[in-house]
Amino acid sequence: MSEKITIYDIAKKLNITAATVSRALNNNPRISDTTRKLVMETAASMGYTQNKLALALKSGKSNLVGVIVPYIDTSFFASIIRGIEEALHPEGYNVIICQTHETEAKEIETVNTLLNAQVDGILMSLSKTSKETTHFEHILNKKIPLVFFDRRKNIKGVSSVTIDDFEGGYVATKHLIEQGCKTIAHLSGDWSLEIYKNRSEGYKQALLDHGLKYDEKYLLHVKSDTEAGKSAVDTLMKLDKKPDAIFSSSDFVALGAIQRLQELGIKLPDDFCVVGFSNEPFTQLMELSISSVDQAPHEMGRMAAKVFLDQVSGVGKVKIEQKVELTPHLISRKSSVKPVAKKKAK
Amino acid sequence: MSEKITIYDIAKKLNITAATVSRALNNNPRISDTTRKLVMETAASMGYTQNKLALALKSGKSNLVGVIVPYIDTSFFASIIRGIEEALHPEGYNVIICQTHETEAKEIETVNTLLNAQVDGILMSLSKTSKETTHFEHILNKKIPLVFFDRRKNIKGVSSVTIDDFEGGYVATKHLIEQGCKTIAHLSGDWSLEIYKNRSEGYKQALLDHGLKYDEKYLLHVKSDTEAGKSAVDTLMKLDKKPDAIFSSSDFVALGAIQRLQELGIKLPDDFCVVGFSNEPFTQLMELSISSVDQAPHEMGRMAAKVFLDQVSGVGKVKIEQKVELTPHLISRKSSVKPVAKKKAK
Repeated sequence: MSEKITIYDIAKKLNITAATVSRALNNNPRISDTTRKLVMETAASMGYTQNKLALALKSGKSNLVGVIVPYIDTSFFASIIRGIEEALHPEGYNVIICQTHETEAKEIETVNTLLNAQVDGILMSLSKTSKETTHFEHILNKKIPLVFFDRRKNIKGVSSVTIDDFEGGYVATKHLIEQGCKTIAHLSGDWSLEIYKNRSEGYKQALLDHGLKYDEKYLLHVKSDTEAGKSAVDTLMKLDKKPDAIFSSSDFVALGAIQRLQELGIKLPDDFCVVGFSNEPFTQLMELSISSVDQAPHEMGRMAAKVFLDQVSGVGKVKIEQKVELTPHLISRKSSVKPVAKKKAK
Repeated sequence: MSEKITIYDIAKKLNITAATVSRALNNNPRISDTTRKLVMETAASMGYTQNKLALALKSGKSNLVGVIVPYIDTSFFASIIRGIEEALHPEGYNVIICQTHETEAKEIETVNTLLNAQVDGILMSLSKTSKETTHFEHILNKKIPLVFFDRRKNIKGVSSVTIDDFEGGYVATKHLIEQGCKTIAHLSGDWSLEIYKNRSEGYKQALLDHGLKYDEKYLLHVKSDTEAGKSAVDTLMKLDKKPDAIFSSSDFVALGAIQRLQELGIKLPDDFCVVGFSNEPFTQLMELSISSVDQAPHEMGRMAAKVFLDQVSGVGKVKIEQKVELTPHLISRKSSVKPVAKKKAK
């Protein structure tokens, strides 16, 4: 075996300082891509292996941040992750992503996996079935910053970045009322997740504030897929007094509802209006584009990263608990904007 | 400080064997969720911290597999990852995901990040700008299995799972010819990625096999987004002899092309046919549903995982290099299927 190669050997070979080599190997943003590449290639060709793990164990810093989401295949979570990466990368952090597929067992495993990988922080959104808090305590006991985004649990000392879901439900419902809709149904998700409960409360408050009746018959709890939207329409259309609008807490459900309404020959937006939630890209691609509440996921990701960075820089000095709430915005499109002539504001 | 808690202390408290505790803590699938949860909660409440990392360094096994993709926010890569997780999870592996945003610098960093996290294997799809091979050699030098899926580099000893992209390009083009299209344009990606080059070769061969001329004027290299599809149509419509069909190597480009064709008042599929590639979910959601070549991403993910598992179980015995090629299938939809009366097969 040859002698162990050090950063000084690499520095000598390239005629640069050891500090530059070290910065390049640690992805310090002050080092240019060209230099970093040169250093990495030289290091590899000389057989240098950086024991980052040993460094991490020693310094307690791995420059690795774990992000946990229920699933990666919606634009919403993918955009949040993009925001997180954009904010953390210039600070020298690398991001690893795990998905829980909405199961608590996988969430617990994933937390352990990330802790074992020595992450410097965990940014996460709860899975639908998450009830336990032991795994969160596990993170906190290790003094690793934990930041919730979108779906959170109220835990002392834990920061979160969410949107004002009540406001989101309120503006969506208010918009439907302003379009002249009188009997607005609401398709919600599982209320064990705060976000759905809050959107429903916004819906209810908007009805009451505008002199409309709140009737539980018109509130259905459904899964977040198109099939659920279709069967919800079937259920609603069996009611004595049929609704003339739907506010859905999910874009996928809104899409399924629209497809079934169209199959039934109901004309949108003339005779029926639909508003979804999340502003998934497909909502604007449809020929009958779908109105939806935008949750600013990119901004949410950047804020979650910022909260984490604040917390890291504050370690040992102050304990920071931030509850950031972003404001959602309604994007009104064809599925809910009636021709002006027919509009009858309350 | 109290004495260090061991798995024997946990076993004693729960009146089960230490082996069961160990299996539960290591997410062995033979342990029920209830038992695992009980063990984990007890371990946490007793202040037990499992030094998995030390174990990993000692045994050389972390039960962690890293997956690298250009980006997570297309259904294609998300489905592959789902397939990988479904195949690896029952075998006791946890999966961590990283995205390169199509940049080589990020790809190199990500490989280092995963190696530092002591992964047992890396399953990856190349970024568009990937030219170097040093980081792959780095992986191989550490004797860590590397499996490419979809976008690969030809490296000795490295397995890959791809689809037959030539066949995909061929069937898409043949289908358009069978619809009576005579002047078929092709929107391709960057040929530094094999997949795009192979699809283009399939396109060319299908033209020649059916007595049509191959003319480079009708082949454009474009980015993979809707805007690129729109401007490609503008370019094509300036040609003396306008095309009557497009085979696009990307669904997003196909969508953009369709939008611009419709803006120009061209009737699809009667006067113009379009076929995309990847079978992204939005292709079937559109009112004018888009024909597309399905790449069986879920199957691709499962196969990539299987190849990795074969390799791990073969370590020290045989060296396995597998080149798995899946067959793509054309899903024909409204954007390319003409009314029977007008159809003129060659």
